[in-house]
Amino acid sequence: MNKVFEWPVRVYYEDTDAGGVVYHANYLKFMERARTEWLRALGFEQDQLRQDYQRIFVVRALSIEYLSPARFNDALIATAEITEIGKSKLEMQQYILSHERERILTKGQVQLVYVHSESFRPQRITPVILDAVNNPL
Amino acid sequence: MNKVFEWPVRVYYEDTDAGGVVYHANYLKFMERARTEWLRALGFEQDQLRQDYQRIFVVRALSIEYLSPARFNDALIATAEITEIGKSKLEMQQYILSHERERILTKGQVQLVYVHSESFRPQRITPVILDAVNNPL
Amino acid sequence: MNKVFEWPVRVYYEDTDAGGVVYHANYLKFMERARTEWLRALGFEQDQLRQDYQRIFVVRALSIEYLSPARFNDALIATAEITEIGKSKLEMQQYILSHERERILTKGQVQLVYVHSESFRPQRITPVILDAVNNPL
Amino acid sequence: MNKVFEWPVRVYYEDTDAGGVVYHANYLKFMERARTEWLRALGFEQDQLRQDYQRIFVVRALSIEYLSPARFNDALIATAEITEIGKSKLEMQQYILSHERERILTKGQVQLVYVHSESFRPQRITPVILDAVNNPL
Repeated sequence: MNKVFEWPVRVYYEDTDAGGVVYHANYLKFMERARTEWLRALGFEQDQLRQDYQRIFVVRALSIEYLSPARFNDALIATAEITEIGKSKLEMQQYILSHERERILTKGQVQLVYVHSESFRPQRITPVILDAVNNPL
Repeated sequence: MNKVFEWPVRVYYEDTDAGGVVYHANYLKFMERARTEWLRALGFEQDQLRQDYQRIFVVRALSIEYLSPARFNDALIATAEITEIGKSKLEMQQYILSHERERILTKGQVQLVYVHSESFRPQRITPVILDAVNNPL
Repeated sequence: MNKVFEWPVRVYYEDTDAGGVVYHANYLKFMERARTEWLRALGFEQDQLRQDYQRIFVVRALSIEYLSPARFNDALIATAEITEIGKSKLEMQQYILSHERERILTKGQVQLVYVHSESFRPQRITPVILDAVNNPL
Repeated sequence: MNKVFEWPVRVYYEDTDAGGVVYHANYLKFMERARTEWLRALGFEQDQLRQDYQRIFVVRALSIEYLSPARFNDALIATAEITEIGKSKLEMQQYILSHERERILTKGQVQLVYVHSESFRPQRITPVILDAVNNPL
């Protein structure tokens, strides 16, 4: 039912470290790019959500396993998939895969909370978003 | 027995995002700074470990809860504490605290593996390091 | 003669700062992405150059003017254009433009040197690269 | 007359790239840390400037020469020195030096403009700041 959204990511020098591989914190950036593009694919622009409703999604918790390193110039795929929907929370599973999808590089779980952009207090997810998340095209 | 190591962190513009708070992936950088300084305080320089033994510590898994946001110009404390010692693995608990220690901003668990710097294969932790980790001054 | 190469860049949270705009150092990342993709379009993969010839391009000098700020979620264009070719040096002009190209956000000059990947000593640019740079398709 | 302000910088993995050296854009972060700490040493907190006066300093132009690479774990010094003071502009010269000051790693010029934090329009520098900049202790 919940489809897996995929977004291509290229590894540039900015993403790597002196170990010769992608710096561990930077996979979180790749994951966020995939979530942003997933929301956009559902029809939602986060700058509009903020302007129109004073709402943003923030990361409340995150866990990630590093299974295989990505290197400079690699073409990767970042995935995003809803695993649980609450009143103000979304749980997502996200993978970083090699370009040919034959290797899982990282495996992550992310808990997002929908909050007011100033107070950071949890808010009910706007119904049109909830609908779109529940019924992706 | 295992003492909590503390390292001061200042929040600069580079660490923040347009939400007005520290970007979620950047807390991982603060945590790594604290681990690096904890190893240095025990007497180990990671560039020397790499040169002398071809060994590096890599992050194998990580989980983090975001409890309260840090903002531009905040003075923070990043902690590092060993919670488990294996043959080639270390488990650490790490907090990011407000300067006065009255607020926990993030709470994280990090699993480190001691690997060969080229093959990234797990290796037994060098005995002098294991000794130092077990018996901090 | 020298065509202007263009590469699309999307602004994510990772790129912004608490001022609400793209952090000034991050435009340099956008510029490097464009240079990397320009080289790729000419047929050169930098990881291959490094492996096959032990050669990398490094930034020797850079100047940038910040004319108009980019914001979260903006779709931008990063350009790359050769302005001078030396034995071991390339001079490039690079712009960051708004998506519709009606606004110049930043204007930069970058001097690249072709160096040995270990010694960082300048080297004559490999002839096939020089040919491609001089005669882009 | 204008003293050179110095701020220590340690190179962590986050700062390096797969070339084994500090990623070129990250020296700009080191330079900004030094500017922030220089302002703080003069008695000004940028979050207070923003809150009290709706003013921020932004980088209007920047040029940098990369003379010698910094590596993982290096202890560096970032300097900041005023070279010109205008109504709404400051020109600064900034170096990144090796710990023992015997090597210049980068040499940079930065033009800062004092702007309104919302409109980004140039503003006269607040007199107390101008006084402090002109007469450092």
